[in-house]
Amino acid sequence: MRLRRIPGTKEALTHYEDLVIMDPESNKGRWREFFGNDHPIHVELGMGKGQFISTLAAQHPEINYIGMEFREEMVHIAAKKMGNHRGNVALLWFNVDNILEIFNPGELSRIYLNFSDPWPKKRHGKRRLTYRNYLAKYKKLFDNAGEIHFKTDNKDLFEFSLNEFGDSGFFLKNITLDLHNSEFKGNVLTEYEKKFSQKGMPIYRCEAIYRK
Amino acid sequence: MRLRRIPGTKEALTHYEDLVIMDPESNKGRWREFFGNDHPIHVELGMGKGQFISTLAAQHPEINYIGMEFREEMVHIAAKKMGNHRGNVALLWFNVDNILEIFNPGELSRIYLNFSDPWPKKRHGKRRLTYRNYLAKYKKLFDNAGEIHFKTDNKDLFEFSLNEFGDSGFFLKNITLDLHNSEFKGNVLTEYEKKFSQKGMPIYRCEAIYRK
Repeated sequence: MRLRRIPGTKEALTHYEDLVIMDPESNKGRWREFFGNDHPIHVELGMGKGQFISTLAAQHPEINYIGMEFREEMVHIAAKKMGNHRGNVALLWFNVDNILEIFNPGELSRIYLNFSDPWPKKRHGKRRLTYRNYLAKYKKLFDNAGEIHFKTDNKDLFEFSLNEFGDSGFFLKNITLDLHNSEFKGNVLTEYEKKFSQKGMPIYRCEAIYRK
Repeated sequence: MRLRRIPGTKEALTHYEDLVIMDPESNKGRWREFFGNDHPIHVELGMGKGQFISTLAAQHPEINYIGMEFREEMVHIAAKKMGNHRGNVALLWFNVDNILEIFNPGELSRIYLNFSDPWPKKRHGKRRLTYRNYLAKYKKLFDNAGEIHFKTDNKDLFEFSLNEFGDSGFFLKNITLDLHNSEFKGNVLTEYEKKFSQKGMPIYRCEAIYRK
C-alpha cells in the first residue's frame, strides 16, 4: 500500500519512546533484558498498520512481539492505535535488509511474513523477503531452531517462496492453498487480508520450519 | 479411469514374460541382477497405460524403470504397446500396499506418482499414495536417499501431499502450481495429463527429497 509521505512523522515517532524503539541496534543481544523476561521473541517483518501483531500480543502475553516496518507513516499509525506503553510489544522503524545489526543469533524463534511485497518482476526477485539471501539471515537469527509463518494472496510469490524455503533447508508444514476454506484454526487477519478475502480470492499460507 | 474387466487378461499378461514380471517377490533384493547392471532404479506407482514410463525409458538408457499398476487391463495395454523384450523396463501387475515385499531397502532411488487417485473423501485419506504410511514405506525403500516426483491436477490432493511430505521429513523442491506455464523443462506427459491440460486447468508438481 502506498502512503503519502507526511513531514514530521519521524519526529512524531519519538513521542512513543516506550513502544517505538528508535535505536534498536543498542538492544542487539539484550532483547530479553529489554522486555524484562525470557519469553520467546516473535518478529513480524512488514507489520503495516500493526493489527496482526497487536492482536497476537493481546492473545499471547507469554510471547514478546517485535513489529518491523520501513514506512514510517505505517509505524506511526500502528503506534497511535497501540498507545505508548511497554507491554510485550515493540515497534521498529527499520529496514529488514539490516536485520543482522539488531539481533544476535538465537534471539528470535519465529518470524511472520504477511502479504509481503511480491515484487512480480523477475529481475526484482532478490527483493522478495523470502529470497534465499533473506532466509540465510533469518536462519542466523534462529541459531538452532525457528519458524517462519508466511501468508500471501499472491500465487506466484507463494510458489517462489515454497521453493526458496525448500532449497534453503526448511521443512514445510501446515501448507494451505486456500486458508479461509481450510481447517486451519486461529488465523489472525491482517488489515489487507480482511479486505482481500472479502473478494473471495484464496489466501496461501505455510510454515517453514528450521532445525539446525 | 475405469476400465471394463476383461476375462483372460491375467493369462494374456503371461505372454509378456520378459517385460511383465508376474512374481516380483522373487526379485526382492536382486533387481540389479535382474536388469544385469548397477543402474539406479526408478519406479512409477500407477503407470496407467505406460506412456510416461516408456517415454522416460527411451530417453534414459542409464536408468532402469519399473512400472507398477494394479489394474491388469492397464498393464496389458502398456505391455502390448511396449512389446515383449527385456530392455531397461519391467512392468508389474501389483498393489502398492505390498511394495515392501518386492524391494529391499536401498533398491530404489526415485518414485514417480502421476495423477494418483485423489480419494477426495476425508475418510479415504489413508488410501492416497502420498499418505504418511505410504511415505514411510517409500523411505524404507530409499534407505539413505531418494526422491518422489509427484504431479496431479487435483489441488486438494496436492495440498494434502505437500503437508504429508513436510511432516514426513522430506524437503520440497521444484514446486509449481501451474506446471505447463512454469519454467520447468523436460516434462514428460502422461496420457491423462495430455487430455486434462488441453482444458487449460493447472497441473501441480513437486519433488520431495529424502536424505537420512
